[in-house]
Amino acid sequence: MNKYQEQIKKFCEERNWGQFHNPKDLLLGIIEEIGEFRNIIKWEQDPEIIKKVVLENKEEAKDCIGDIFWFLSLLANSCDIDINEAIEMTIKDNEKRFPIDKTNSKHTNIYLGGHDGKYKK
Amino acid sequence: MNKYQEQIKKFCEERNWGQFHNPKDLLLGIIEEIGEFRNIIKWEQDPEIIKKVVLENKEEAKDCIGDIFWFLSLLANSCDIDINEAIEMTIKDNEKRFPIDKTNSKHTNIYLGGHDGKYKK
Amino acid sequence: MNKYQEQIKKFCEERNWGQFHNPKDLLLGIIEEIGEFRNIIKWEQDPEIIKKVVLENKEEAKDCIGDIFWFLSLLANSCDIDINEAIEMTIKDNEKRFPIDKTNSKHTNIYLGGHDGKYKK
Amino acid sequence: MNKYQEQIKKFCEERNWGQFHNPKDLLLGIIEEIGEFRNIIKWEQDPEIIKKVVLENKEEAKDCIGDIFWFLSLLANSCDIDINEAIEMTIKDNEKRFPIDKTNSKHTNIYLGGHDGKYKK
Repeated sequence: MNKYQEQIKKFCEERNWGQFHNPKDLLLGIIEEIGEFRNIIKWEQDPEIIKKVVLENKEEAKDCIGDIFWFLSLLANSCDIDINEAIEMTIKDNEKRFPIDKTNSKHTNIYLGGHDGKYKK
Repeated sequence: MNKYQEQIKKFCEERNWGQFHNPKDLLLGIIEEIGEFRNIIKWEQDPEIIKKVVLENKEEAKDCIGDIFWFLSLLANSCDIDINEAIEMTIKDNEKRFPIDKTNSKHTNIYLGGHDGKYKK
Repeated sequence: MNKYQEQIKKFCEERNWGQFHNPKDLLLGIIEEIGEFRNIIKWEQDPEIIKKVVLENKEEAKDCIGDIFWFLSLLANSCDIDINEAIEMTIKDNEKRFPIDKTNSKHTNIYLGGHDGKYKK
Repeated sequence: MNKYQEQIKKFCEERNWGQFHNPKDLLLGIIEEIGEFRNIIKWEQDPEIIKKVVLENKEEAKDCIGDIFWFLSLLANSCDIDINEAIEMTIKDNEKRFPIDKTNSKHTNIYLGGHDGKYKK
């Protein structure tokens, strides 16, 4: 099992928090962090400035990313899923879904002519 | 650096996908997965049945969890953040924020009398 | 056109804000409000207490609901969509999608045996 | 009360759906629609092309916008909130929060020097 997932599991068991970890609450927890991250970059359209403002507020960005992983681990725990297995499955799937020759330097938005082995428009 | 973050980084470098990885797109990618997970459990109010339906659809749940980590890694990459450092920071912060004696068997919703060292109502 | 959509349109035209209203930013704006609403009800599992805490914090809930409509209007404006037409389309679609005889007192989660004329499991 | 909110209320009463309308489910319903909208525009960075692809897929965009309003109305119903009152409050608040002379042609992201009467960095 993922080392961090295990630590987070232990943290919550020590507090008897399992009773609160309805998947709906955990999904909404991730949402809240996404909203906080959005605040750093909102309305800016220039990719270079977006990159710059995130780097200037790296601690806040790091905080959101750590918190999203936290809720994701709890979600995995609530479903008896090993987060490492889930990640390995996604990586393997994406290798098939996005072959290099069809996706090199191209996005995968099928509405805009991209290739995605999973969906067709 | 987190082993999976590194693999995902390499995967995207091989496809020159950095140009598409605006944090806004990555945050919205996580959102889409949350929407898919929601579909499995929506409208059901009984925690036992929620748990049961997730276990019955474990592959789909696993898929969402892996994909959320995928986008989270890309987000971390786009900000030059080591996801392991972010997680360790969150765990350390939560130890201070939620001391066992104040949060044992209690949720942390301050609107409902819970304890949260970060926020007061 | 929806009266409020029109007012919000004028508000933004007076400030030349169209340049910032990328749909990605507007979608993420809605996300942020959802995260704020979540804070009022998080971790609580009893539907009666959830209802009670929202009523006790009605101004905050109202604020989130108004703000979500605000971003939704801007999203509609950015796509030249009349929000009233969109709503009428949804209502009409849902009448076909969820006939009373098949959905009366039943949820529409197909993973749990519900009826949804749009999706099959 | 908003005419559509009332129609949607009646629609759900005819099906006895109140029992399923936990605010958590309704918030996650909006999330799912945002994920669907994201699919139309994902990875594209050019604002003109984003605008174009939304117009080319206007029915899908309209569908998402109508569905978001649908869930928003149900959320308001579940909290005994009149959606029109909520919108009017937001418009009034934003007039104070974003005075024209301080926000004309400027975004409101305080991390990037914008003006927001509600938050300071």
